[in-house]
Amino acid sequence: MKTLEESFEAVLAGKKPQNLYEPISYILMQSGKRLRPQLVHFAVDLFDGDAEQAQLIAMAFEMLHNFTLIHDDIMDVAPIRRGKETVYKKWNSNIAILSGDALAIMAFQQLLKLDCDRELILEIAKVFAQTSLEICEGQQYDLDFETQSAVSIDEYVNMIRLKTAVMFAGCLKSGAIFAQADAESEQALYDFGIHLGIAFQLADDVLDVYADSPAFGKTIGGDIRDNKKTYLYLKALELAEPAQRKQLEELFAVPTVNFEEKYQTIRAIFDALQVKTITENKVRQYVEMAVADLDKVHVAEEKKSALKSLALKLIDRKK
Amino acid sequence: MKTLEESFEAVLAGKKPQNLYEPISYILMQSGKRLRPQLVHFAVDLFDGDAEQAQLIAMAFEMLHNFTLIHDDIMDVAPIRRGKETVYKKWNSNIAILSGDALAIMAFQQLLKLDCDRELILEIAKVFAQTSLEICEGQQYDLDFETQSAVSIDEYVNMIRLKTAVMFAGCLKSGAIFAQADAESEQALYDFGIHLGIAFQLADDVLDVYADSPAFGKTIGGDIRDNKKTYLYLKALELAEPAQRKQLEELFAVPTVNFEEKYQTIRAIFDALQVKTITENKVRQYVEMAVADLDKVHVAEEKKSALKSLALKLIDRKK
Repeated sequence: MKTLEESFEAVLAGKKPQNLYEPISYILMQSGKRLRPQLVHFAVDLFDGDAEQAQLIAMAFEMLHNFTLIHDDIMDVAPIRRGKETVYKKWNSNIAILSGDALAIMAFQQLLKLDCDRELILEIAKVFAQTSLEICEGQQYDLDFETQSAVSIDEYVNMIRLKTAVMFAGCLKSGAIFAQADAESEQALYDFGIHLGIAFQLADDVLDVYADSPAFGKTIGGDIRDNKKTYLYLKALELAEPAQRKQLEELFAVPTVNFEEKYQTIRAIFDALQVKTITENKVRQYVEMAVADLDKVHVAEEKKSALKSLALKLIDRKK
Repeated sequence: MKTLEESFEAVLAGKKPQNLYEPISYILMQSGKRLRPQLVHFAVDLFDGDAEQAQLIAMAFEMLHNFTLIHDDIMDVAPIRRGKETVYKKWNSNIAILSGDALAIMAFQQLLKLDCDRELILEIAKVFAQTSLEICEGQQYDLDFETQSAVSIDEYVNMIRLKTAVMFAGCLKSGAIFAQADAESEQALYDFGIHLGIAFQLADDVLDVYADSPAFGKTIGGDIRDNKKTYLYLKALELAEPAQRKQLEELFAVPTVNFEEKYQTIRAIFDALQVKTITENKVRQYVEMAVADLDKVHVAEEKKSALKSLALKLIDRKK
């Protein structure tokens, strides 16, 4: 069975024009964690589906994910991703727009190559399309929140559900559909993905402020530098004394001038209000919900243990 | 049967966030010529397909078309389209990128709602995806040619085939597939669309320089102002004396300063080399090829007359 990279190379071989397909090759060949393909395969394996064919679904979701990264990096004016220049920076934003578009279309094309019951292909395509659309909704909310004065915690969690979690959920559900799981298992895997995805992002919010710098792959405090209203910030606002609220709001209302000072000030407020612990508790809650979802996945316990381990590993990562 | 606009309104009703869906509503509700939906319906009617269901295919292609317009307007930094502000100008380029993305996904979703033989849906989806990808290729070539010193006429025709003609072809072929036409008719309609689409764009190239200004909906000479290497320009280069070639190349090598003078100079060279007539002859050639393609469409002659009329009307338009 070809590796994911070999499959990507095969679909891109000889395609022109170069300025459209080289950026696609560039981003796909960078090894991210390939988490989304893993999730597809996990779900397919749970129900003894065809692993080789399932790679088409894994490719589709990984391509969809990378399409969102290309476009997000234009919107965020981001120069670096995974330690390398973003497509937008290495080429330009016009090329990044078009390559992203082409990558999204190629993602769908992988699904259309599936050689199984047409009804299943249609079901998977519908999940895939809805997932794709919801990711756009999440990204739009994320952009909106940058300039929205008051963002509720419910709004924030909904945004990360759409922007991050529905992809995990869609990968798992699509894999289950392909492997002809029962409807309740499909829904349970979807819910598992949602709860895991939210936990993942909340854990990310904590790491951004509190990670051990060398182990963490990114700059500590990037969210604070970027005035990103994460769970920690929103929780802090909720619990803050008037004086603390004033500081939080004022510091987040202007572009960062003195990062080190801003980071220390905000972090001190976070520490005082114990929002790290509160958020970590929330992460644990979502992981517990995810593990509970697995009860409704109708396969033997030992088969589910790999998913349980993945869940715990994702949340406990230091980077 | 709902109108196209009523159907668009229905799929957009209540969708959030507003910043994602308002721009989509804005562009879809502007009445363009709705040419692509017309082509879908023409093909479906030729083979007595279900007109009501076919509207989903018509919607899909019209949405795909508008997605390409939203993104093209960002890349071209275009402030106006159809007499109104572009999405990119009315909102901003981040919103235009995302709304375009969402619109492309929603386009696919319309196809997935089709209630017919799943094999047909899969076939149509494949044509749709391939068409979408080829349009991206065409747009990339168009961008490349802006800075490519030598562009051959073959390269140019290939670019307009991808950028404009494959959409016409895809609309017709999808309609024919849906109405369960025979394979030869499907291919013939596809070829008709390609030849018609190329004729359409070449006629557009002529109009851009030579149209009667009031009747033409756009500024005369926009291609000259934008240094666009159209068929007229490339033909002129091919036939030019050294002195004329030098003028053509030098004037097109720099952003336009004095438009009126540039237009008159270029047009004078075009007139001297008779490229208007040469291009109009080429348009006629492609229309003849298109009409010949209809011979392989296996329906009664009188049913094909509407397509023949559309072909001639498109090419003869004054705006």
